[in-house]
Amino acid sequence: MTSPSNLFARMPRRLPDELFTTLLDAASVRIERIVCHGHASPGEFWYDQDQHEWVIVLKGAARLRFEDGSVELKPGNCLNIPAH
Amino acid sequence: MTSPSNLFARMPRRLPDELFTTLLDAASVRIERIVCHGHASPGEFWYDQDQHEWVIVLKGAARLRFEDGSVELKPGNCLNIPAH
Repeated sequence: MTSPSNLFARMPRRLPDELFTTLLDAASVRIERIVCHGHASPGEFWYDQDQHEWVIVLKGAARLRFEDGSVELKPGNCLNIPAH
Repeated sequence: MTSPSNLFARMPRRLPDELFTTLLDAASVRIERIVCHGHASPGEFWYDQDQHEWVIVLKGAARLRFEDGSVELKPGNCLNIPAH
Protein backbone atom coordinates (compact mmCIF):
# COMPACT_ATOMS: atom_id res chain seq x y z
CA MET A 1 0.00 0.00 0.00
CA THR A 2 1.36 3.40 -0.93
CA SER A 3 0.97 6.50 1.24
CA PRO A 4 -0.83 9.59 -0.02
CA SER A 5 0.95 12.86 -0.56
CA ASN A 6 -0.79 16.22 -0.30
CA LEU A 7 -1.01 18.58 -3.23
CA PHE A 8 -1.46 21.58 -0.96
CA ALA A 9 1.50 20.75 1.28
CA ARG A 10 4.99 22.20 1.00
CA MET A 11 3.82 25.50 -0.42
CA PRO A 12 6.77 27.89 -0.68
CA ARG A 13 6.47 31.20 1.16
CA ARG A 14 8.55 33.01 -1.38
CA LEU A 15 8.19 32.13 -5.01
CA PRO A 16 10.54 33.93 -7.39
CA ASP A 17 9.51 31.64 -10.28
CA GLU A 18 6.65 29.34 -11.11
CA LEU A 19 7.09 26.06 -9.28
CA PHE A 20 6.59 22.81 -11.23
CA THR A 21 6.43 19.57 -9.24
CA THR A 22 6.00 16.24 -10.99
CA LEU A 23 3.50 14.14 -9.07
CA LEU A 24 3.44 11.21 -11.46
CA ASP A 25 5.59 10.37 -14.47
CA ALA A 26 4.36 7.34 -16.36
CA ALA A 27 4.79 6.01 -19.90
CA SER A 28 2.13 8.17 -21.49
CA VAL A 29 1.02 10.62 -18.85
CA ARG A 30 2.67 13.12 -16.55
CA ILE A 31 0.87 14.84 -13.68
CA GLU A 32 2.31 18.13 -12.50
CA ARG A 33 1.46 20.62 -9.79
CA ILE A 34 2.11 24.19 -10.88
CA VAL A 35 2.28 26.94 -8.26
CA CYS A 36 2.30 30.55 -9.45
CA HIS A 37 1.93 33.87 -7.67
CA GLY A 38 1.00 36.32 -10.37
CA HIS A 39 3.68 34.97 -12.69
CA ALA A 40 3.34 35.30 -16.43
CA SER A 41 5.34 33.85 -19.26
CA PRO A 42 7.30 36.45 -21.25
CA GLY A 43 5.19 38.59 -23.58
CA GLU A 44 6.40 37.18 -26.88
CA PHE A 45 6.70 33.62 -25.67
CA TRP A 46 4.11 31.06 -26.88
CA TYR A 47 3.84 27.50 -25.67
CA ASP A 48 3.80 25.07 -28.60
CA GLN A 49 3.74 21.58 -27.16
CA ASP A 50 4.02 18.14 -28.69
CA GLN A 51 1.91 16.91 -25.80
CA HIS A 52 -1.73 17.43 -25.06
CA GLU A 53 -2.35 19.19 -21.76
CA TRP A 54 -5.38 19.05 -19.49
CA VAL A 55 -5.34 21.71 -16.80
CA ILE A 56 -7.45 22.41 -13.74
CA VAL A 57 -7.22 25.37 -11.38
CA LEU A 58 -7.69 24.32 -7.77
CA LYS A 59 -6.99 27.56 -5.89
CA GLY A 60 -6.76 31.18 -6.97
CA ALA A 61 -7.13 32.03 -10.63
CA ALA A 62 -5.27 31.84 -13.92
CA ARG A 63 -5.45 33.42 -17.31
CA LEU A 64 -4.44 31.53 -20.42
CA ARG A 65 -3.89 33.36 -23.66
CA PHE A 66 -4.42 31.63 -27.00
CA GLU A 67 -3.95 32.92 -30.51
CA ASP A 68 -7.69 33.53 -30.76
CA GLY A 69 -8.45 34.90 -27.30
CA SER A 70 -7.86 34.43 -23.62
CA VAL A 71 -9.68 32.48 -20.95
CA GLU A 72 -9.99 33.07 -17.21
CA LEU A 73 -9.87 30.02 -14.99
CA LYS A 74 -11.24 29.93 -11.46
CA PRO A 75 -11.24 27.08 -8.95
CA GLY A 76 -12.76 23.98 -10.54
CA ASN A 77 -12.35 25.26 -14.09
CA CYS A 78 -10.65 22.71 -16.31
CA LEU A 79 -9.59 22.91 -19.90
CA ASN A 80 -8.25 20.49 -22.48
CA ILE A 81 -5.48 21.98 -24.61
CA PRO A 82 -4.65 19.84 -27.66
CA ALA A 83 -1.01 19.68 -28.79
CA HIS A 84 0.06 22.48 -31.17
CA MET B 1 -9.92 27.99 -28.30
CA THR B 2 -11.94 25.63 -26.12
CA SER B 3 -14.09 26.78 -23.22
CA PRO B 4 -13.42 25.62 -19.70
CA SER B 5 -15.89 23.48 -17.80
CA ASN B 6 -16.14 23.50 -14.03
CA LEU B 7 -15.50 20.41 -11.98
CA PHE B 8 -17.61 21.68 -9.10
CA ALA B 9 -20.61 22.58 -11.26
CA ARG B 10 -23.69 20.44 -11.79
CA MET B 11 -23.49 18.79 -8.40
CA PRO B 12 -26.55 16.63 -7.86
CA ARG B 13 -28.70 17.38 -4.82
CA ARG B 14 -29.71 13.80 -4.38
CA LEU B 15 -27.22 11.08 -5.06
CA PRO B 16 -28.53 7.54 -4.76
CA ASP B 17 -25.32 6.13 -6.29
CA GLU B 18 -21.76 7.31 -6.84
CA LEU B 19 -21.64 9.61 -9.84
CA PHE B 20 -18.89 9.07 -12.42
CA THR B 21 -18.41 11.76 -15.06
CA THR B 22 -15.76 11.38 -17.75
CA LEU B 23 -13.98 14.69 -18.23
CA LEU B 24 -11.47 13.48 -20.80
CA ASP B 25 -11.17 10.21 -22.68
CA ALA B 26 -8.01 9.97 -24.73
CA ALA B 27 -5.95 7.12 -26.18
CA SER B 28 -4.06 6.30 -23.02
CA VAL B 29 -5.62 8.35 -20.25
CA ARG B 30 -9.10 8.90 -18.88
CA ILE B 31 -9.96 11.66 -16.41
CA GLU B 32 -13.05 11.13 -14.28
CA ARG B 33 -14.86 13.12 -11.65
CA ILE B 34 -16.30 10.89 -8.94
CA VAL B 35 -18.94 12.30 -6.59
CA CYS B 36 -19.89 10.26 -3.53
CA HIS B 37 -21.95 11.01 -0.45
CA GLY B 38 -20.92 8.40 2.05
CA HIS B 39 -21.17 5.63 -0.52
CA ALA B 40 -19.15 2.48 -0.15
CA SER B 41 -18.56 -0.41 -2.48
CA PRO B 42 -20.10 -3.70 -1.30
CA GLY B 43 -18.24 -5.40 1.54
CA GLU B 44 -16.85 -8.35 -0.38
CA PHE B 45 -16.17 -6.44 -3.57
CA TRP B 46 -12.54 -5.65 -4.48
CA TYR B 47 -11.44 -3.48 -7.36
CA ASP B 48 -8.89 -5.31 -9.52
CA GLN B 49 -8.09 -3.04 -12.44
CA ASP B 50 -6.03 -3.51 -15.59
CA GLN B 51 -5.42 0.23 -15.49
CA HIS B 52 -3.31 2.29 -13.16
CA GLU B 53 -5.28 4.88 -11.23
CA TRP B 54 -4.13 8.16 -9.75
CA VAL B 55 -6.67 9.71 -7.42
CA ILE B 56 -6.94 13.05 -5.66
CA VAL B 57 -9.58 14.15 -3.17
CA LEU B 58 -10.64 17.76 -3.74
CA LYS B 59 -13.50 18.14 -1.26
CA GLY B 60 -14.66 16.10 1.70
CA ALA B 61 -12.89 12.88 2.52
CA ALA B 62 -12.51 9.33 1.33
CA ARG B 63 -11.32 6.03 2.69
CA LEU B 64 -9.68 3.45 0.48
CA ARG B 65 -9.21 -0.09 1.69
CA PHE B 66 -6.38 -2.23 0.36
CA GLU B 67 -5.51 -5.82 1.14
CA ASP B 68 -2.84 -4.62 3.57
CA GLY B 69 -4.62 -1.73 5.23
CA SER B 70 -6.72 1.34 4.62
CA VAL B 71 -5.90 4.95 3.94
CA GLU B 72 -7.83 8.14 4.70
CA LEU B 73 -7.75 10.87 2.09
CA LYS B 74 -8.49 14.51 2.79
CA PRO B 75 -8.55 17.47 0.41
CA GLY B 76 -5.30 17.63 -1.53
CA ASN B 77 -4.33 14.05 -0.73
CA CYS B 78 -3.38 12.12 -3.83
CA LEU B 79 -2.43 8.52 -4.31
CA ASN B 80 -1.08 6.40 -7.14
CA ILE B 81 -2.69 2.97 -7.32
CA PRO B 82 -0.84 0.61 -9.67
CA ALA B 83 -2.90 -1.88 -11.70
CA HIS B 84 -3.69 -5.19 -9.91
